[in-house]
Amino acid sequence: MRTADSVPERLLNAGLSLFHERGYNGTGVQQITLAAGVPKGSFYNYYSGKESLAIAALHRYNSGIPIPTLFDTSVGGPAARIRAHFEALRETFAASGYRNGCLMGKFAMELADASERTRTTLEEMFHTWQSSIASVLAEAQYAGEIANRCEPAILAEYLLQGWQGAVLATLVTKRQETLDAYFNTTFDVVLAARDVAPAANT
Amino acid sequence: MRTADSVPERLLNAGLSLFHERGYNGTGVQQITLAAGVPKGSFYNYYSGKESLAIAALHRYNSGIPIPTLFDTSVGGPAARIRAHFEALRETFAASGYRNGCLMGKFAMELADASERTRTTLEEMFHTWQSSIASVLAEAQYAGEIANRCEPAILAEYLLQGWQGAVLATLVTKRQETLDAYFNTTFDVVLAARDVAPAANT
Repeated sequence: MRTADSVPERLLNAGLSLFHERGYNGTGVQQITLAAGVPKGSFYNYYSGKESLAIAALHRYNSGIPIPTLFDTSVGGPAARIRAHFEALRETFAASGYRNGCLMGKFAMELADASERTRTTLEEMFHTWQSSIASVLAEAQYAGEIANRCEPAILAEYLLQGWQGAVLATLVTKRQETLDAYFNTTFDVVLAARDVAPAANT
Repeated sequence: MRTADSVPERLLNAGLSLFHERGYNGTGVQQITLAAGVPKGSFYNYYSGKESLAIAALHRYNSGIPIPTLFDTSVGGPAARIRAHFEALRETFAASGYRNGCLMGKFAMELADASERTRTTLEEMFHTWQSSIASVLAEAQYAGEIANRCEPAILAEYLLQGWQGAVLATLVTKRQETLDAYFNTTFDVVLAARDVAPAANT
């Protein structure tokens, strides 16, 4: 924690880091103020409660999702950019030793039923993420880089669900092979370049 | 809670239900004993702590996963049984109004880093679940009901990750369409009957 940061910035950084590691219910306001090095009372000068800080942490986390990679044409064609996007996510997760996972997924599990404000925030974030992927999938289909058999919006939703599930499974196994199952099946089967052929003998 | 149940059985039922609804960190021992209608002190006569009850709840939950459907030949061929398995899971989740989700996924997010005992329990459970699906996928490939392009173990892992991710996403949207994205892509693309054809013009 850089002490040069403002108090609300220090609270936000401490909250983000503790929520990511221990979840929402595993983190108390007192732990946050302690980690931020600010008096407990000052918390409520900046945030109305833990839920408000959680929403702010979610926005900060969301701004780190490598969406720009999806549109960075220096990376390559649309299919290459989709792969680069998921590889950037994988790299960050691997660097942590497959710990903590995705804050959005974690809050989804803990708070979707308990905090309507968090649920709607997550719904918007997932929708935006998904739409970005969908637009690049449409580009890839148009370029003939992937088969044309699925609606891009549905396919994007599927890829993102799969990613969240792959992170969840890898949190449990702590093994790279678990993430490989996601990457291999996604890129070799779901995003295969070729359309399904008529069956030879039916 | 049936008062005819034994005290440990009432604690287990109350714990399972509260953990599923509020998560591990969102549930206290006192809430569990209150819901079970037993004195707080009696908890520790049966469980060494909240973690032990969580493991017991996980085993009880796991025994409800519709694995038998995968092997019930009265349902149909192997591909039909895989679909019936996931449809049984979907039906339970839909009946809840897309709340709570999967206890295994929930504990994975909250406890994989915090409780090694829970992590290894989950790892075994996911592995067994996955192996059951893999054996039916192998059968389906042998019968020519699905394409032969993927190793059944990897494909089973992918399907299960996708299911966990689809549940997570549906907890957020509360919409049936979110689960449909999983079902449609899984059964029309990933488990398609036909092998990918050589490209016509490359």
